[in-house]
Amino acid sequence: MGGTRNNSVSNSSRSACNSKGSMIVVSNRLPFILKRNEKTGDLERKASAGGLVTAVAPVVIRCGGLWVGWPGIHLEDPNEKIPESDPKDKTPTAGLLSKKIVPIRAEPNLFDSYYNGCCNGTFWPLFHSMPDRATFIADHWKAYIKINKEFAEKTVHALRLLQKEKDGGSPPIVWVHDYHLMLAANWIRQKVEEEDIKCKLAFFLHIPFPPWDIFRLFPWSDEVLQGILGCDMVGFHITDYCLNFIDCCQRNLGCRVDRKNLLVELGGRTICVRPLPIGVPFDRFVQLAQNAKPVLSTNQKVILGVDRLDYTKGLVHRLKAFERLLEKYPEHIEEVVLLQISVPSRTDVKEYQDLKEEMDQLVGRINGRFTTPNWSPIRYIYGCVGQDELAAFYRDAAVALVTPLRDGMNLVAKEFVACQINKPPGVLIVSPFAGAGEMMHEALICNPYELDDAAEVIHRALMMPEDERTVRMNHLRRREQLNDVDSWMKSFLKAMDSLEEETDDIGATSIPPVTIDDFDEYLSKYIGYTQKLALLLDYDGTLAPIAPHPDLATLPLETKHTLQRLSNMSDVYIAIISGRNVDNVKNMVGIEGITYAGNHGLEILHPDGSKFVHPMPMECQDKVVELLKSLQEQVCRDGAWVENKGALLTFHFRETPLAKRAELEAKARELIAAAGFTPAPAHCAIEARPPVEWDKGRASIYILRTAFGLDWCERIRVIYAGDDVTDEDAMTALKGMAATFRIASSTITKTSAERRLSSTDSVLAMLKWVERHFSRRKPRANSLTYKSARKTRDTLQMQMSYHLPTISPKSSPPMTPDKASSGSESS
Amino acid sequence: MGGTRNNSVSNSSRSACNSKGSMIVVSNRLPFILKRNEKTGDLERKASAGGLVTAVAPVVIRCGGLWVGWPGIHLEDPNEKIPESDPKDKTPTAGLLSKKIVPIRAEPNLFDSYYNGCCNGTFWPLFHSMPDRATFIADHWKAYIKINKEFAEKTVHALRLLQKEKDGGSPPIVWVHDYHLMLAANWIRQKVEEEDIKCKLAFFLHIPFPPWDIFRLFPWSDEVLQGILGCDMVGFHITDYCLNFIDCCQRNLGCRVDRKNLLVELGGRTICVRPLPIGVPFDRFVQLAQNAKPVLSTNQKVILGVDRLDYTKGLVHRLKAFERLLEKYPEHIEEVVLLQISVPSRTDVKEYQDLKEEMDQLVGRINGRFTTPNWSPIRYIYGCVGQDELAAFYRDAAVALVTPLRDGMNLVAKEFVACQINKPPGVLIVSPFAGAGEMMHEALICNPYELDDAAEVIHRALMMPEDERTVRMNHLRRREQLNDVDSWMKSFLKAMDSLEEETDDIGATSIPPVTIDDFDEYLSKYIGYTQKLALLLDYDGTLAPIAPHPDLATLPLETKHTLQRLSNMSDVYIAIISGRNVDNVKNMVGIEGITYAGNHGLEILHPDGSKFVHPMPMECQDKVVELLKSLQEQVCRDGAWVENKGALLTFHFRETPLAKRAELEAKARELIAAAGFTPAPAHCAIEARPPVEWDKGRASIYILRTAFGLDWCERIRVIYAGDDVTDEDAMTALKGMAATFRIASSTITKTSAERRLSSTDSVLAMLKWVERHFSRRKPRANSLTYKSARKTRDTLQMQMSYHLPTISPKSSPPMTPDKASSGSESS
Repeated sequence: MGGTRNNSVSNSSRSACNSKGSMIVVSNRLPFILKRNEKTGDLERKASAGGLVTAVAPVVIRCGGLWVGWPGIHLEDPNEKIPESDPKDKTPTAGLLSKKIVPIRAEPNLFDSYYNGCCNGTFWPLFHSMPDRATFIADHWKAYIKINKEFAEKTVHALRLLQKEKDGGSPPIVWVHDYHLMLAANWIRQKVEEEDIKCKLAFFLHIPFPPWDIFRLFPWSDEVLQGILGCDMVGFHITDYCLNFIDCCQRNLGCRVDRKNLLVELGGRTICVRPLPIGVPFDRFVQLAQNAKPVLSTNQKVILGVDRLDYTKGLVHRLKAFERLLEKYPEHIEEVVLLQISVPSRTDVKEYQDLKEEMDQLVGRINGRFTTPNWSPIRYIYGCVGQDELAAFYRDAAVALVTPLRDGMNLVAKEFVACQINKPPGVLIVSPFAGAGEMMHEALICNPYELDDAAEVIHRALMMPEDERTVRMNHLRRREQLNDVDSWMKSFLKAMDSLEEETDDIGATSIPPVTIDDFDEYLSKYIGYTQKLALLLDYDGTLAPIAPHPDLATLPLETKHTLQRLSNMSDVYIAIISGRNVDNVKNMVGIEGITYAGNHGLEILHPDGSKFVHPMPMECQDKVVELLKSLQEQVCRDGAWVENKGALLTFHFRETPLAKRAELEAKARELIAAAGFTPAPAHCAIEARPPVEWDKGRASIYILRTAFGLDWCERIRVIYAGDDVTDEDAMTALKGMAATFRIASSTITKTSAERRLSSTDSVLAMLKWVERHFSRRKPRANSLTYKSARKTRDTLQMQMSYHLPTISPKSSPPMTPDKASSGSESS
Repeated sequence: MGGTRNNSVSNSSRSACNSKGSMIVVSNRLPFILKRNEKTGDLERKASAGGLVTAVAPVVIRCGGLWVGWPGIHLEDPNEKIPESDPKDKTPTAGLLSKKIVPIRAEPNLFDSYYNGCCNGTFWPLFHSMPDRATFIADHWKAYIKINKEFAEKTVHALRLLQKEKDGGSPPIVWVHDYHLMLAANWIRQKVEEEDIKCKLAFFLHIPFPPWDIFRLFPWSDEVLQGILGCDMVGFHITDYCLNFIDCCQRNLGCRVDRKNLLVELGGRTICVRPLPIGVPFDRFVQLAQNAKPVLSTNQKVILGVDRLDYTKGLVHRLKAFERLLEKYPEHIEEVVLLQISVPSRTDVKEYQDLKEEMDQLVGRINGRFTTPNWSPIRYIYGCVGQDELAAFYRDAAVALVTPLRDGMNLVAKEFVACQINKPPGVLIVSPFAGAGEMMHEALICNPYELDDAAEVIHRALMMPEDERTVRMNHLRRREQLNDVDSWMKSFLKAMDSLEEETDDIGATSIPPVTIDDFDEYLSKYIGYTQKLALLLDYDGTLAPIAPHPDLATLPLETKHTLQRLSNMSDVYIAIISGRNVDNVKNMVGIEGITYAGNHGLEILHPDGSKFVHPMPMECQDKVVELLKSLQEQVCRDGAWVENKGALLTFHFRETPLAKRAELEAKARELIAAAGFTPAPAHCAIEARPPVEWDKGRASIYILRTAFGLDWCERIRVIYAGDDVTDEDAMTALKGMAATFRIASSTITKTSAERRLSSTDSVLAMLKWVERHFSRRKPRANSLTYKSARKTRDTLQMQMSYHLPTISPKSSPPMTPDKASSGSESS
């Protein structure tokens, strides 16, 4: 666990080229949709012609891969077969056999909550940095989880199919797409690890990834990040989105990150983040443009807009900017025309209906204002346009207006330049808020929000001299030709191939192991040069690596020596808080002069030998007597006996002959559970834990208060480290009052800790940081040593012992002088 | 110009404590408002009791300072006197004499566009990361500029008053407040530099500063940043906002920044950015809480909310979360009550009226749903509450709900803990999206967007054991007591004092001078290891420091030697593009084998001695003949003569006796201007520049094309550096196709360049980076040397010379083979 090398699910050898392996594409929609023939009632495929499908489908077909997705129709018969493609179908997906299709079936209402609710009602506006339009509804989120799980299950099923088909060879790539499926990768990873299926997991986001200040608004933002980080490689269009994502991983999850090499560490794995700007099928568009018949018969210069009718596209702003152009530069009247094609989208959502109405009204108003007998300024097409016609528009337009308010990439800008085969060429205007605006430097950049400026830019485009147009368009076309969608696909496969290499031309692919210096930034800020430090540490999985049997989980020697030295420092206080029983944990650690808490804090052994045991709650007093009695009557034979420790009853069977233990143990567990207590295994014993409101959090505060007094939080600094869910109670209780570390080797782990560590090695590095920090500090006069702290505690204990001797399980714990008990102290 | 030390407007000595100097506070509102007495018609002061005023006013009064602001009323008589305070007034502003008040008077409509339009319609939602609510209207922005100028003028006037009053001593601090006045500092700086008034300029933003992805939506975002950077010190509440601001300065303005020490360099100055989290008058609130009579007579636990009725405050979410609490945990029914105080705000704005309606309806619905005969869940006060009553609410509430969707700091959270003097204390719940949420660690953190989670957190607060409440509240109160508003004021003054120190406990206060390595990140990405480089450089202010007379602006020896060595490198091509005439600039630089362009590119001298002069446009052909004739007839005497250079006519008077020159020169200028040409001074000459569409941008593209061929932009890299407005034409034309540097010693300079440099020294460092980079590159076979490039050019010229010999001024320049001219080539 110690290192942070990339331990991908796949263990393929270095030399293996993963692009030769198979591939499973997981996307919300299949690369075609199913429709029911109204006459025959049969299902038929309707091909999709998107650039993504064009690039990806051939690769999937070639490598015998599979495609997981929703077919675009809710099928009532779950066994209804997916039809093969029509023999006349010449699209790239025609070769995708039905047995290679894994359709998702989902209950329509659930799917609606997932798709219209969470995907398009929450993530779409949020990821486009329009938080005001986003809704945060728990039920939509639950539907999103369920549908993502369904996709994960179907994907694992597909992986099993692939595994059966071929043995050996490169492990397949599972490629999850877009904001619909940000959680799927994690469940896929869990399953394949359980079943030991080899694969490499990748994710690509087709929309922007927002800055942290926006992303963190989402109430389940941690889960989304963790879901994505289930992959080995995560791709975004541009570096800005990569950096936003990495920033979120660091600030939300407490991950270690490497901004230079674009890496994130989580659960002992390194995840590569890569900018992979998508392209268009450039040559296909050139061909379309070459073959398309002229559609526009006008002498006017055409300004072209092509968009889905979506609020992110800035269509209202665009029309107003065009109006402003005609106002400011009337010389363009009767000389230019704005051809706006708006493709209907999400027409069942009110927000989109409102937008359509606003557009209709605006087109009418502007045309009404400027139209002359033989000319109207805006030609507004609300509908779909065929590929050929579109290519002709692209080819013959003088100006393309690509002015979204926010856009992941925007392929219209790229399709336009591909089709600009006429000499002299036209001019591309693009918004800086589109991914394309980051890459297509030679376009004119236009802030769509500012109408005056937008009008100026359109005017500049219309008036631009030929030489400048030529230079700009040449450069733009050259870049898009080089970086077309096939090149994007190759970059993706190359990035997947290089995952296991230490470094390559893409950059390093793993974060170096944690060192002492890694803690400098975080801890130096928190622990100054005057405060004392309390180190609260879990044992198993935190100080000692997890072992097959608790007895084998020994403390590594270096850790022991470091703890030993720390325990001798006057400004460092150490408490080990474990789920083990207190004697056992003390035995495992074996250091004198520090505090041990066992049973998640129900028993606390102070360094002076005094012991606190949480008192039995009043309601349990009768029950514990009964339980004690029944245990003694029914299982205390053959050397077995019961120890009464206050809040705990311990049933010991160390001296019972081996052959008889199992039966006695099972019976004891049964009796304990029946009495409403929790049976917990200890060494040759079972503990009966009462239903008390006590946990590692309450225990931590108790320990700190008794060691340092009521005002502990003003005078000392606290570090808490733990790897277990029970440690989360402490991390929550100490939030804001301690530096907290969760040791987590799994990606999925959710934590209240501020930082994550991937292994016990990292905890050792942290302890060494503490040692270095405190040995550099000058010895202070009158520093509060443990001894004087203990005195404070004793005084407090005495003050407290005047008060109520027992407490009810749901009231506050024995800590406030006003109404608390000191518990039963025995030395 | 060379260094980047902090050259604040003030030159006060290091030891001077600026806190002993005077202070001018500039804020949108004065620290009191004026009202007209309805009976007497007299103006009266109405005191304001805000914490800010309480902290700042005494300092202003003590140091004899002034306050510039709007009095809250539009006065019709501009000479109407500001009244003195009422003798009975005991508030902190009572001591502020009327002569220390500088009221702003503004035309009501203009003020409305500024205040309701730009400040509250644009900046308020945008800076709270709610871009969808922001409007971007040019007229509002223009009003904002005008009102900011008015504030700047009044502030300079105030500074003059102060200067008259005391001579010597520390220079006064001008402290500009908040998003209303983000441009004022720059004009103040300009004026005080002109008039040599000493002062130190500071700015503090009371609202959040958004991330770059949001901020850059504002069409005039550069101007806002530059306005703020007119100050010496810029303060925000928390480090996150500081980093957002610094990020914007780097990405929008191309400034050099230091994220560790929070510094920004602009125009040769270093601006310190500092987190200064504002506090509350803690002790005053304690006192209020001690003295306030109980107001609430209820046995129910009170959950308290106190907010201006603003969409950033999350009030609708809060009510819904409370409803969810009652749904999920019906045990709280009749046991708790939500007391929500909503202070009316911006009631004339529709968005705020809508919010009020929504709140009214929601309160009614929830109360209707849960009310029992003797209990209503929500007590909703729409109105203002007195300080005493408020303190009683704060003191007696069990839970305070401070759950804004976004908030710069939020003082309610702080006032609440100050007033929590009861034992056991209550619980603070705060949103992570408020500045207070970043600092008040021990509060319960609650994402207001997620209703289920918010209900859980409220439940946890209501059920929290006393010991935990005590620990948390103690810590919270202690921090707020230490960091109260007076401490904030002191931190501010300390930060101002330390501005001129090299380092102190706040951190370094200047960015080290530019070094070669500074260019690594930017240029290495752009200039790889295979491309050639074209260096296009302006002369005056770029290579040579500006001098009192053009003849004195000599090229520093080191720069000359560096250029000389660069000119010998086969992969580096150099062109100097100047506003001087071409012979003069060649003479000043004195390096052979490079290209010189004079007269902003109208004349270009190639290294082989061939010369291009832009042809005279057709429309000017007649005019130039007339001008030539009139010059020859009227001023060609006493040795003066006219040279006809194509697009340029040059009137020489070098041989004219000194005594006669002035008259001839003036007359020549007159004739040139009358002919529609632009007279431009040259050495002992005046040039008549024709009204051609030609500038440094067109000239740059011409130079690149003739040197490297039509496809230059695919094969070479370009660096352009210039310091003049005329260089902006080149930066715009080359945008996306070159690395561009603007040398700017002023903060105000607006530029299309990607990066800024503060001096000619930095240009030298850049040239040295180029030298180092190219000497490290391996020599390539077949590299295109200048000679072969020249061949390309000659071939092109020949191709081009078949085409139109003259062009009209507004058509495209002579560059495209299709319809271009080669200009007049003469060798």
